Amino acid sequence: MSNGKNTTGSRQIKLGAIIQGPSGNMAAWRHKDAIADASINFGYCKALAKKAEEGKFDFLFVADGLYINHKSIPHFLNRFEPLTLLSGLAAVTSHIGLVATLSTSYSDPFTVARQFSSLDHVSEGRAGWNVVTSPLEGSAKNFSRAEHPEHGKRYRIAKEFLQVTKGLWDSWEDDAFLRDKDSGVFFDPEKLHTLHHRGEYFSVEGPLNVGRSAQGRPIVFQAGASEDGKWLASAEADAIYTRQETIELAREFYQDVKKRLRENGRRGDDLLLFQGISVIVGDSQEDAERKYWETAELVTVENALDYLGRYFEHYDFSQYPLDEPFPDIGDLGQNSFRSTTDTIKRKARELGLTLRQVALQAATPLPTFLGTAETVADGLQQWFEAGATDGFILRGGTPTAFDDFVDKVIPILQARHLFRDDYEGKTLRDHLGLPFPINRYAASAAEVLARAG
Amino acid sequence: MSNGKNTTGSRQIKLGAIIQGPSGNMAAWRHKDAIADASINFGYCKALAKKAEEGKFDFLFVADGLYINHKSIPHFLNRFEPLTLLSGLAAVTSHIGLVATLSTSYSDPFTVARQFSSLDHVSEGRAGWNVVTSPLEGSAKNFSRAEHPEHGKRYRIAKEFLQVTKGLWDSWEDDAFLRDKDSGVFFDPEKLHTLHHRGEYFSVEGPLNVGRSAQGRPIVFQAGASEDGKWLASAEADAIYTRQETIELAREFYQDVKKRLRENGRRGDDLLLFQGISVIVGDSQEDAERKYWETAELVTVENALDYLGRYFEHYDFSQYPLDEPFPDIGDLGQNSFRSTTDTIKRKARELGLTLRQVALQAATPLPTFLGTAETVADGLQQWFEAGATDGFILRGGTPTAFDDFVDKVIPILQARHLFRDDYEGKTLRDHLGLPFPINRYAASAAEVLARAG
Repeated sequence: MSNGKNTTGSRQIKLGAIIQGPSGNMAAWRHKDAIADASINFGYCKALAKKAEEGKFDFLFVADGLYINHKSIPHFLNRFEPLTLLSGLAAVTSHIGLVATLSTSYSDPFTVARQFSSLDHVSEGRAGWNVVTSPLEGSAKNFSRAEHPEHGKRYRIAKEFLQVTKGLWDSWEDDAFLRDKDSGVFFDPEKLHTLHHRGEYFSVEGPLNVGRSAQGRPIVFQAGASEDGKWLASAEADAIYTRQETIELAREFYQDVKKRLRENGRRGDDLLLFQGISVIVGDSQEDAERKYWETAELVTVENALDYLGRYFEHYDFSQYPLDEPFPDIGDLGQNSFRSTTDTIKRKARELGLTLRQVALQAATPLPTFLGTAETVADGLQQWFEAGATDGFILRGGTPTAFDDFVDKVIPILQARHLFRDDYEGKTLRDHLGLPFPINRYAASAAEVLARAG
Repeated sequence: MSNGKNTTGSRQIKLGAIIQGPSGNMAAWRHKDAIADASINFGYCKALAKKAEEGKFDFLFVADGLYINHKSIPHFLNRFEPLTLLSGLAAVTSHIGLVATLSTSYSDPFTVARQFSSLDHVSEGRAGWNVVTSPLEGSAKNFSRAEHPEHGKRYRIAKEFLQVTKGLWDSWEDDAFLRDKDSGVFFDPEKLHTLHHRGEYFSVEGPLNVGRSAQGRPIVFQAGASEDGKWLASAEADAIYTRQETIELAREFYQDVKKRLRENGRRGDDLLLFQGISVIVGDSQEDAERKYWETAELVTVENALDYLGRYFEHYDFSQYPLDEPFPDIGDLGQNSFRSTTDTIKRKARELGLTLRQVALQAATPLPTFLGTAETVADGLQQWFEAGATDGFILRGGTPTAFDDFVDKVIPILQARHLFRDDYEGKTLRDHLGLPFPINRYAASAAEVLARAG
């Protein structure tokens, strides 16, 4: 198993690639080079997966949502469910990790444990689960629920959900299945464990009808930078997907999470932080900026107001004048995308932005890293070496930017020994250098010796 | 689209292939030719899928279950969740249909609609859903439920579930997505429909965030031959998976279902019946019988009692003497596998079988069709031409029997023009010759003309 170090012993950058419709912004499907139906086009997803694997990416990352209406972003209207998409991609890739988003607010731990474990077996140890709690109020109405749980409750549900799921993933010890044809013994009954979970939100008996995988169990990501999110991640996650706008904010976040981790009795290395970024690579700075504008200009202000509204429970911003200061909308957003909406409001206030500016910046933000391949590589190196992140989850800033990144930026990172030349192992856990999770029921070496005593 | 007729205009047999651990019986994993971990081995599943596609099978069929204990059948203990498995197989096959079992008693219509629709998009129109209601009482304890719903209620839930799912699958009309890059119009809002379902068991707002597929929507199978099962199937299903032991019983069942179909205002051709069978092909009748015994003898009587017990809510039959008449166990089984347990009890009574005989016959039954390739082909032809079935869902009676069937029996059926030489179309609906389902919201041709005035 890899320890995530390069040959000279220093730490290396980890990279994830987002699959989510045409890259760029909500209107990027209009770009001349875009595949307009990318969000539901398996051929497109397969090509992106293969390109990411060619670039030795650690994993693919698929976002999700459980509620749409006529104002939703085009590539959210008609898109693959993440687990089915990644199960398909598992069969046509060999190394890259496969991280699917799934909400703990509207699902059952038994089914979720089974489906992720199945993906982990189909892919021979490459599955990951990005745990979210569903920010959108409307989700409740698609799931026969009277109300959408409030923010804190959603995270308490998520924590118990994760504990149950991890318990189910330990139903069978790694060596439980003997499959001895001569004796007819299929499994060792001592290595089968029934969970008997009775909690506040779930009662799950077990055992799970799937055994452990090549990487023990799927890798758990947590997305969301709110207090509740950090509380959940530092207790239960293997990785965090977050987005900070500056290197300073990212460092602060990084240190905060690693501190919480230690407070939870975990080691700093037990959890990796990933910054969500977008990139545009050009032949020159001007060329990169031209590419940005080519995609940005596809977004109309009406598009942008709808985009902004979604973060605030599909709020209708078109009722306000466009060129006056961003309106006071009170607490709106607190129960949905809390950390994102807090940031939007704070920036609007601090910078004195108009509604038009806020909407357009939200809908088609300037990429985190934009410039020549060298400039982009410099940016990643700077964030990484400053201790602002362990890696990046990357989305192209135009429909063709991801290919450019693989072709032009990856070789530079490799030449600088900041990124792997080839996969060191086979599983996602190998790639990330995370420790193999010992089954909770497995006898320790000491116990085994004592028994043999 | 194919109409399911052969070139001479006569009806042809439809064929499904079961993927479910090593073929034969519960102990077939011990067979020298068996892949012992077949139920969780993607390479095995892929090879079987490719063999079935080589044999021009209509579809693969994956069973499921939501509860295990230490007495469960070995290949149920550690197996793929059907949707994840079939999504993987979708990516490495091109024509064969992909039918996954999923229970309506322990899932949410929004998620189920999404996942099957996603599979339908990944596979370009090859998805099918085998609707079951979870026979095992223990399932409730894995899903935080106080009790397992009784048989009739499970089917009423299933009916509403299917109505909701089909409603969600019609959220977008087939031509709703315009994706016009110039105008920036992604979809036609007139062709987006919100379900607003408020029923006895479910409240689901919609719309679904997946559009229609190449075959409109996934094909709906229903498994289970009870009165409740027939009631559900004749109202909502496109196909039935059943198992009758004799050609007479199968004809009776066939006529009964087709009559109910017409009573529901549907045409006889709107639903196909499939008999579940197992086959063993030998060089001679004796060779086939030898192959049967080679696999049958791997089952111990203890194995067989556990196997039998599962149909009766994991009842412990080991408390009874083996060689005395099958015990009177009252109503046991009525709330689980109702039609199967009724048949077991009736046969035991009519034939005066001992517990040992009942258990072994259940655990390792003689294949429906066993003999030379000609004999097996004759058997299929006889059932088909007698109007006992529209097709068969087939499982090998030994670990290698499925390959034998494809290599030896398929060519005979093809020579007799009873089975296709090659796929006529691309979707599962094409293969089965089922009508394309018009979106419920689509304007009829007449309406369109009237509007055009």
